[in-house]
Parts: sequence; C-alpha cells; structure tokens
Amino acid sequence: MKAGRLFEYNAPVRVVDMPEPKIEGPMDVIVKVGGAGVCGTDLNIQKGLAKDSPKLPYTLGHENAGWIEEVGSVAAMSGLRKGDPVILHPFTSCGLCRACRGGNDMHCVNGHFPGLDIDGGYAQFMKSSVRSVIKLADGTDPVPLAPYADAGITSYHAVKKVIPLLYPGSTAVVIGIGGLGHFAIQMLKVLTSTSVIGIARSNAKVEFAKKLGADAAFPAGNDGGLKQVRDFTNGAGADVVLDFVADKETPDTGVKMIKKGGAYCIIGEGGIVSDTTIDMIVRELTLMGSLVGTYNELNELMELNRMGRIKITSKVYPMSDVVQVMKDLKDGKVLGRSVLDPWK
Amino acid sequence: MKAGRLFEYNAPVRVVDMPEPKIEGPMDVIVKVGGAGVCGTDLNIQKGLAKDSPKLPYTLGHENAGWIEEVGSVAAMSGLRKGDPVILHPFTSCGLCRACRGGNDMHCVNGHFPGLDIDGGYAQFMKSSVRSVIKLADGTDPVPLAPYADAGITSYHAVKKVIPLLYPGSTAVVIGIGGLGHFAIQMLKVLTSTSVIGIARSNAKVEFAKKLGADAAFPAGNDGGLKQVRDFTNGAGADVVLDFVADKETPDTGVKMIKKGGAYCIIGEGGIVSDTTIDMIVRELTLMGSLVGTYNELNELMELNRMGRIKITSKVYPMSDVVQVMKDLKDGKVLGRSVLDPWK
Amino acid sequence: MKAGRLFEYNAPVRVVDMPEPKIEGPMDVIVKVGGAGVCGTDLNIQKGLAKDSPKLPYTLGHENAGWIEEVGSVAAMSGLRKGDPVILHPFTSCGLCRACRGGNDMHCVNGHFPGLDIDGGYAQFMKSSVRSVIKLADGTDPVPLAPYADAGITSYHAVKKVIPLLYPGSTAVVIGIGGLGHFAIQMLKVLTSTSVIGIARSNAKVEFAKKLGADAAFPAGNDGGLKQVRDFTNGAGADVVLDFVADKETPDTGVKMIKKGGAYCIIGEGGIVSDTTIDMIVRELTLMGSLVGTYNELNELMELNRMGRIKITSKVYPMSDVVQVMKDLKDGKVLGRSVLDPWK
Amino acid sequence: MKAGRLFEYNAPVRVVDMPEPKIEGPMDVIVKVGGAGVCGTDLNIQKGLAKDSPKLPYTLGHENAGWIEEVGSVAAMSGLRKGDPVILHPFTSCGLCRACRGGNDMHCVNGHFPGLDIDGGYAQFMKSSVRSVIKLADGTDPVPLAPYADAGITSYHAVKKVIPLLYPGSTAVVIGIGGLGHFAIQMLKVLTSTSVIGIARSNAKVEFAKKLGADAAFPAGNDGGLKQVRDFTNGAGADVVLDFVADKETPDTGVKMIKKGGAYCIIGEGGIVSDTTIDMIVRELTLMGSLVGTYNELNELMELNRMGRIKITSKVYPMSDVVQVMKDLKDGKVLGRSVLDPWK
Repeated sequence: MKAGRLFEYNAPVRVVDMPEPKIEGPMDVIVKVGGAGVCGTDLNIQKGLAKDSPKLPYTLGHENAGWIEEVGSVAAMSGLRKGDPVILHPFTSCGLCRACRGGNDMHCVNGHFPGLDIDGGYAQFMKSSVRSVIKLADGTDPVPLAPYADAGITSYHAVKKVIPLLYPGSTAVVIGIGGLGHFAIQMLKVLTSTSVIGIARSNAKVEFAKKLGADAAFPAGNDGGLKQVRDFTNGAGADVVLDFVADKETPDTGVKMIKKGGAYCIIGEGGIVSDTTIDMIVRELTLMGSLVGTYNELNELMELNRMGRIKITSKVYPMSDVVQVMKDLKDGKVLGRSVLDPWK
Repeated sequence: MKAGRLFEYNAPVRVVDMPEPKIEGPMDVIVKVGGAGVCGTDLNIQKGLAKDSPKLPYTLGHENAGWIEEVGSVAAMSGLRKGDPVILHPFTSCGLCRACRGGNDMHCVNGHFPGLDIDGGYAQFMKSSVRSVIKLADGTDPVPLAPYADAGITSYHAVKKVIPLLYPGSTAVVIGIGGLGHFAIQMLKVLTSTSVIGIARSNAKVEFAKKLGADAAFPAGNDGGLKQVRDFTNGAGADVVLDFVADKETPDTGVKMIKKGGAYCIIGEGGIVSDTTIDMIVRELTLMGSLVGTYNELNELMELNRMGRIKITSKVYPMSDVVQVMKDLKDGKVLGRSVLDPWK
Repeated sequence: MKAGRLFEYNAPVRVVDMPEPKIEGPMDVIVKVGGAGVCGTDLNIQKGLAKDSPKLPYTLGHENAGWIEEVGSVAAMSGLRKGDPVILHPFTSCGLCRACRGGNDMHCVNGHFPGLDIDGGYAQFMKSSVRSVIKLADGTDPVPLAPYADAGITSYHAVKKVIPLLYPGSTAVVIGIGGLGHFAIQMLKVLTSTSVIGIARSNAKVEFAKKLGADAAFPAGNDGGLKQVRDFTNGAGADVVLDFVADKETPDTGVKMIKKGGAYCIIGEGGIVSDTTIDMIVRELTLMGSLVGTYNELNELMELNRMGRIKITSKVYPMSDVVQVMKDLKDGKVLGRSVLDPWK
Repeated sequence: MKAGRLFEYNAPVRVVDMPEPKIEGPMDVIVKVGGAGVCGTDLNIQKGLAKDSPKLPYTLGHENAGWIEEVGSVAAMSGLRKGDPVILHPFTSCGLCRACRGGNDMHCVNGHFPGLDIDGGYAQFMKSSVRSVIKLADGTDPVPLAPYADAGITSYHAVKKVIPLLYPGSTAVVIGIGGLGHFAIQMLKVLTSTSVIGIARSNAKVEFAKKLGADAAFPAGNDGGLKQVRDFTNGAGADVVLDFVADKETPDTGVKMIKKGGAYCIIGEGGIVSDTTIDMIVRELTLMGSLVGTYNELNELMELNRMGRIKITSKVYPMSDVVQVMKDLKDGKVLGRSVLDPWK
C-alpha cells in the first residue's frame, strides 16, 4: 500500500510502498483510511521536537477517518462490519487500567497513539483498536471529517474543562484560530453563553474567527491582544483564556489576560508558562494543561457535527501533495484544516 | 488602647497607645481582641513585600479572635451580644457583589482585609463586620483558637480544592509543616483517605508531621524531597502537592513531584512557578493558586475543632513579646502557631 | 396607592387604595412597581392552597420589576438611585445565614417572599431589600420583563440543575409550555446541545414549543406523551424530564419517560410523585424538586435577555384587568406570561 | 463441581453436582470461588421477587472472591495468573458502551450479573470477565472479603453520591445496620466529618452501629426513629438519609427526616417512595436510587480495607450450611455478613 513516511528528521515526508497492517489480536481493527488530517504536531515531529521521538522510519497521521476493512474477534462481536464509515479516536486505549475505567482514555497507561508512536494514517490502511472506533451513520463520507479525530476532540476536551467557569456575562479568549481554534469558537458559542474573543496573527484568521461566531476578534499585534481583551472586559480581564498557540510569548500574555479566579488553559505547545506564586494566590488563578479528549467526547462531537451545530472547515488533498500541504500549514496559510486522501 | 504597629518598613513592630475604633456603619462590629496569630505574611509586610503595601503607620494582625464589644444596627439584629466569644473571618466582605453572592467572600470586590490594608488585631480592640463574625459556643476561650482564622481557613480552602482528586490509593504531599501545613496534614487525614507525605526543612518539623498523622515525612534535603516522593509512589509521583512554602526552588520541585493528571496547589509565596507548555499538556497538569477561604469554610473548620477532629497547636504570648515572637517565626522555631494576647 | 389585594379565599382580587410602604431598616428598598407577572401560584393562593396561607388581606404579586423609589442607608451605599430600572429577586434574603453565605438565597432561613408571605407587587409601590435588587441598563423598560423575576429564574435554576446530565445526543422533555416552560425550552437550546421535546395540552402551546426551538413537540394526549417520547428516543427514554405541571398524572408519566441513570425534575405542583424503591435502584433514577433560583442566576438570566439569547413572550395589562387576566391563566389561554401594570 | 442452586421459587437452595464452566471468549476468566456472600437479594430471588427472575435452575451468589483458575487470551495479556487471589466486581461489563466508557460499569447495556441473571458464586468455580477482576495483594485470604464485592461496593457508591452534601456540622442517617449499613457507617466516618446516626430494628444492631463509629444509634421503634433524628438535629432534620431497608414504611419516614435541600438515598428495596410535588419543591428535596458501584470504586474500597480504615465483619460457613445461613439472614440474626465457602 501507499504510505507517507518520515525517514529522517528535518526532511520531507516521502510517499512510498509498504506492506499492509494485519490483525494480530482480538481487539484489532484494520481501517481503510479515507482522510488523515495534517496537524501542527506533525510539523513538530518532523523537526524532531516530539517528547519521545519515534524510531524512524514511520508513518505520520494521528487524525484519521475511513472505513472498516477487517476486524478481530472482539471487534467482530461489537457489530463492526467491512465498509462501515468510521472515525478513529487517536489513542488505542487498553480499557482495563484505572484511567480507562474512569473514562479518561487519554491517560491510559498501556495504549498507543498511531501516528505518534506507531504507524499512523498517512497510509491506505492502518491498524487501530475496537476501542477507538466510532461508527458514523451509513452513507456518511468520512474523508473531510477526519480533523474531528484530533483537532476537534482536543478543542472539545479543553472547552468542556472550562465550561464550569463560564456563565452569561463572562468572557472567554481563544488564542490561535487554526485547526483547533476554529472548533473552539463554535463550541463556546454552542455550549455556553459566554462572550468569545478570538485572537490571531493574520487578518484572514481574525475575519475567520468572526465568521465562526466570535463576538469580537483582534490581531495579536505587539502585545498579543492584551489591551484589546482588557478594553473589551472594562479592565477586568477574561474569565478563561484557551491558548492554542502556547508558544513564545503567548503564555505570558495569556496569564495577564485572566481575571481574579480565572483560568488559563494550555492546548498549544512550544513555550513556557510561568507566574509568581504571589500572583497565583492573590488572583487565585488556575493554569491547566489539556490533552486530547475521551472516546465519549469524540462521540458527542460527531453528534454535534451530525446535528449541524458544529461545522468543520476542511479541504481534501491527494496524498501526493503532502509536502506542499505541510508547508502551507507551516506558513499559516490554512483556514481550518487540510486532509490527505491516500487513495488519490 | 494598646496596639502593635508598624511605623516603618524593615523596622520592628512597636507597641503604642492609640484611640479605640468606633462603630460607623450598621454592619460594623467592634471586637475586644483576645488573640492575634502571628503569620509569615506579617514578616513579608514588615519587609515591605506585600503586593499593595499599606500606608504606615498601621496595626498588623489578620488572624483574630476575641469577644464582641459593640455592634451596629444590622449586626445587632443578627443576635450578637457584648461578651460573645467569636473568631473573625479575615475579610470584611460586602455581601452584595457577585463573588459574595456566590459564596466566594475572599473574592469580594468591595471588602477590606484588617491587618493587611486597614488596622488589624495586634490591638486591644479592632473593627470588623457582622459578615466576618463566627460566634463560638458560650464559654469557649477564643484566644488560642485565633490561628484558625487565617492559617486554618487557608489550609482548609486548599485541601477542599484538591479533595476531588484524592481517592483511597492516592498520595498527597504537604510541603512546609508550619502554621498552615500543620493543619493541612490533619485535614487530609480527616476528610480523605489519601496517603499523606510531609516535607519540612527541620527534623523537628519532620517529626511534628508524623505526630500530626502523616503516613510518611521527610526532610527537604538537597532535592526538596523529590526522590522520597518518587520512591514512596513507586515512581509514579503524587496525585496532589500542596506547597505552603512556594519560595525559591519548591515550585520547581513541586511540579516534578506530580503524576499525570495531577495538581500542584500553591499556598505559600515568594517564588515563581513555571513549566513547559508541552509538559503541561502531555501530563495534563493543573497548577492552582489558593487564597484564604470562605466564611462557611471557617464555620466548618470551627466545627471540626469543636468535634476534636482537628486540633490546633498554638502558644500564647503577651503582646509585649511581639518582636521576639516574630523573630522566632522567621528563624523557623515555631511549632504550629504563636498567638499574641494584647491584654497581657 | 392602588393595590390588587386578596380579602378572602376563593374570591376575586380587588383593586383598592392602601398606604404606601415605608423604609424601616438600612437594607430596605421601596420600588415603584412597573409590572407584576401573574403566576399559577397566585391562582393556588387564591384557592387557599398555599403551604402556609398568608393572613388576609394582603397584596399578591411575587414577580416584579420597576424603578427604585427610595433606599435605606446600606442600599444607598450600594449605588442605587431613585429612577434606576430594576428587577427584583423574589426572595428578600438575609445575607448572613449558611444558605445565603453559600449562594443559595432561596434557602435563606430569615427572609421573606413578598407576594407570598408579605405584601407583593400587585401595587404601585412595594418594599423589597437591597439584596433583591438587580439594576437594569439605563433606559431599559422593566415592565414586560417582570416575569423573568420568577418564571424565568425558576426555569433557569431547574435547567442548570440538569445540565450536567445533558450532552450532545441526549434528550430532555419539557412538560408544560406555560410561563416557565416557554423559558425552559429556550434555555435548553442555548445552554446545551440536547434534543428538546415539548409536551403541552393545547395545540396552540404545542406549536408555541416548536416556535421556541423545541426539536419536537407533542400534545399530551391520553398517555401524557409517553409513547411519543419513547418513539423519539428509540425506546430508550429521555435523559431528563422537567415537569412544569407536576399535577395529577404527570409525575407518573414523567418517571416512566426517564432512561437508566436519568433524572425527573419537579417544578410544578399539585400532584404526588412516587415510584417503587426497586425501580429507583435498578434504573438508578433521581427525582429532584427545584425551587426558584439564586440572585446570581437572575443576574445571568437578565444578561441572556440583554444579549437576546433568551426572549420573553409577555403581554402587559392594566391592573384593573386583574380578574380577567387571572381567569385567562386558569383557562390555559395565556401564551408566555401576562403582566399587570399598576399605573394603568 | 459442587454448586448451591435454586430449582424452584420458594424452595430451599440445594447443593448439587454440575459441570465446571469453561473459557469461551478472550475476556473470560474462570475463578475458583473461595467465598460467596449471602445477601438479602438472594432471599428476594428465592421468593421470585427479582425484577427479571432468572430461568431455573441456576446458581445463586453475586458477591464473590477467590483465586484465578484459568484465563482467556485478553485476560492473559492483562497479567492475571492461576492462583492470584481476586475479588470480583459483580457485573461483567462490556467496556465498549457509553456507560462503560464513562466509568459507569453498572449501567453497561451488554453485561451480565452472575448470581442474578447467569450462574453465580455459590459454586466451586464460576465464570467471570477480565473486566471484573481485582487482583488482591499476594497472600491475601480472599474468603472473608467476599462481601466487599457487593455489600461493600453498593454502600460505597451510595456514600460517594452523597458526600458533596456532607460538611462538618451536617448529619447523615443510616437506616438498616445489616451487611451494607455496617460498611456505610464506617465509610461516612472515614470519608467525611458528618455526624452519623444509625437506626436499626434490633438492640444488637443498634449497639453494633455504635461500635462501628456512629455518633448516635437508635432503635427504629414505632416512628422509624423520626423523633430521635429530629431531636438530634434540633428539629432541623438530617442533610442526608441512606436507606438500606427501603421497605414498607421506611421511605415515608426517610423523606420526613430530611431537611431543606437534603437528599434521601435509596439502596434497599421492596417499598414505595412518594412525596407531594409541593413538598419536593418547597423543601427542594432530592430522592436518589443507588445501584452497585463501579470497578474503580471496588478497587478504592479494597485499598481502604488494606489500609485498615474500613473493616469487614463477616463469618465464613461451609456451603452445606446454606439453608441455615439464609434463614439466619431472613431472621435478622446476622451481624455484618455471612460467607459461604464452597470447598467446605
């Protein structure tokens, strides 16, 4: 089969031929990949910046959707059949550890993250687990939906963490209107009555934020949007900041944007978050990291998509365009998310 | 009346004569102070390190208990009478802002913090508010109980914030076994079934932690106790770290001690907390500041004291010893808390 | 002043002249009533069915809005001025009991409920408390907004109680599309992504439910809508039932509509709720009563109104129409809520 | 193998020979039963009162502990080995439905409840699932611990549901000091600082409640203990009532015992719970059914046992005594729980 693989760090992904994956255990599922989202994390992996860089060569792609191809014995009992359209939770959790038992799949101590630590979905077929499969309604085209599998669920998990802090009259800031942020703005509007401010580098993304429903959107400018947030909130600051960039200066700015009792939620990566302990106490702040989400959260999100309450902005490219697609992402040119189709 | 006042920064408190406070509004309460706890924050104020240093001269003391002396009209309707033994919530909240209405007195936007921003309890009489008064059972001696008013409630608020993360089989670390930490260890044992590790600088305080019920206690040593926590938890790390020091290197160590999904709670002050955003995400950590607590929390705490489930270690000194008592605190010589009696 | 008063049970309200209320304590507020909502509870009081029937004669009206006329000393300090447009939380809470301190104004042990236990708002002036006043934006016409003060806040409190049970893919049933239910449907759509089913007696109200945003609406019919709810949920039952009728057979039907782990929330009155303990266990059901709401909840609700996310359907009548307006309500002819204007 | 089976309703259990269960799927586990607790539910099943009475003959016993005998392929991967001492979660959940994914194993839509709907643990061997197995520390004697598997976990689940309502100064009532209630009293004392009142029919159980740590214990008497609860709480009523009887008149009494805003939690079975909707609203009551608990809860409970914070009172009998043991339970003669050992 064709697969887009990384052979060395700081070099482009190459589309090559490789053997198809096989069913090895009763939980295994082979999926014919329809679409694989291209994520900023893929760029970081390519640069060798991932926390535990995988052994090369391996296949990128942790945001995948497609159709069931073959199933193991437990997977078969669950009713999955060849041809079913599916989207995949990015983590193949074990189902038996304390985290899995409590619904926190993403903290599973025995699982894998295809596309990060084993072969992923920049390929015509990939191996996943019955625990990761969400069946879509018959006839659904899974290809453009792939980004829900990671960009979507990661936003949704972060938004759900901060919902208890958001009430009518409150304000939430979304820093970074990329693949994740474009979901977060919609989710905040659909699931809460907070006022939403979007902040982005480019004017195109500032406009995109408004189109997605942000009550206001500002260019990051020199101060990362701090003054604009203060003005919008009459000097009080925001109740919640969701930082999908979290690189360089955004954590500093983000912490300054929050009001007394508020929370700064980190979803992006690359920077350092810091504050004096006296400020943490006096303003009683909370700084929280947020990882992908749970299986049930992805299920809920696909329901929001089905109901039309959340809409995805994605564009599908043939896998042969992988190098250009990754470059566009790096250059900040993508609105929403790009998806690779390995069959084109 | 006699009062212990600060006339210039970096100089000792002086006990002087000054006029007694008067009832000015219907919510006002004049309390005859029986005991005023001596807190590390008093040392910071003396050094001019408080966030908004008060205008000098003024009277220290934000941890106060005594007897009702005189009440305003609203306070009178609430049933308070001269001679009632009382302990005072440290904040004189307004009762009308959103924070007060939601039970978060400590975030009140209109209140005062006697001993921090207006005259406090190192004095024979002080002015407080009907909203701050908790009546103790008739005949209770309020003097040795004063430290519940700040050290107690601050510990209790922090412990209650982390309780949802603590289950039988979990581990909580208490860094700093001073006035606050000596309460926190007991609270964790009484309100949860977590295993508690105490960490302190001096051997006396390590032993004190064990006596208070810690399952284990270690000297901070060169690595702040990190290795001991890792060993105790078989390498996994603690579910929760409560840092009552939060100065210099403890925040760094504290963040390292936590396991995936865990929380580092800051109650001490003076240092800087920081972490990479990638670590915040991958371990899905939460860093939380914690301020004093609510009025209801102080009420619950006094009930725990009455039931004998939490016990205070405090020693009462005449106000004339104020300089020595503050020096002993600075030198780490106090077990539990010292209390000044302005009538001796 | 003119006031609509009840002189004997089971007799019509009479509009009479009576003395104006006076400021007596520092928390008191005199409000010039602009509008007083007419509620089903007023019909029950008239029939002598209230739990603790008030001593007659007295003035009905517990759903009030208008303008500040005069204020006591504490109220004055809070910035209220004559002429400010306001809406009134229906309970005059004390602010000092455990319930008030925890934000649960409606459980205050010292307060009054004007219009239920003391003179209410079917009058040109009424006495309330600074703790009950919510200032509206300058220039707001408070008259048609009065129903938010009770119908609105009561719905909002109930909806907030069940929100934790509602996720995308879940179903909530609203029984009774009257003054309260017409708010509940909108709130469920704005604050959650559940599917909402409305159930009403009359076709006009079934259509009203759909217009308000219900995903489906059915006439109660012979079985109270049970079959329709089961069909809509493919036999599973609803996650949540909010019963704004709770009279005669609706509690029986309501409990049958819920699925395993679900909740039946009671806001109406007059009937009996019952279930076998074995069914309560095996389906792990929760039955919950819901009382008005908190001051902060009313504040949030007025923000939802200001943002245009919740809209009120109300019609204003001169106080002289009180008898007819109460009759129309009894006959189920009111869409949304009727409001009496005591100055017309 | 030997097994205690029910051949007809309203007839005694008979100990007979039958074939041993076999591994059929990859999740299956065969356990050599060491002890099977005898529960009031067994008496109800015998009387044909279970909701969905199982097809006869079948083997009773849903509260089981013992040693691993044989494992399926997935179970093998999880590290279980022949001879490991284990206790079994009573439900063999699927791990794939929304309830399992969210940690609510007991609401699994695909599982079985051995001893209720398929053959249980009154037998030398039984079939369970890898999802139900909790491994105990090497060398642990599982036999006397069996009652944790159902009586323990059911109490623990109920106690955890009401913990958010319990604060220092609150009161909780435990009705019924049998197998479940004897755990509940200890759990309330270990996990909260509420005052605990025990209520039982016999004087032996009233004394037992005190020995277990109840702050007070009363005989049910003519009024079910209502007056005693009111006196203990100065007329206010209890914050929480946990009813482990829930038969005949206890639900009526239980609802009357609760204070404003309180909760009545049903764990026993046989009666009817009912209240007027007006009382449900005015006192804002919550009535909640409580089913067994989750796998993680059983794990936490075994940790509480290991730490010695919860202690079991159980007595082990040879299986041949099954008829007498069930009669003793029916006659209210058992303190704590009786366990059958099928190998004796």
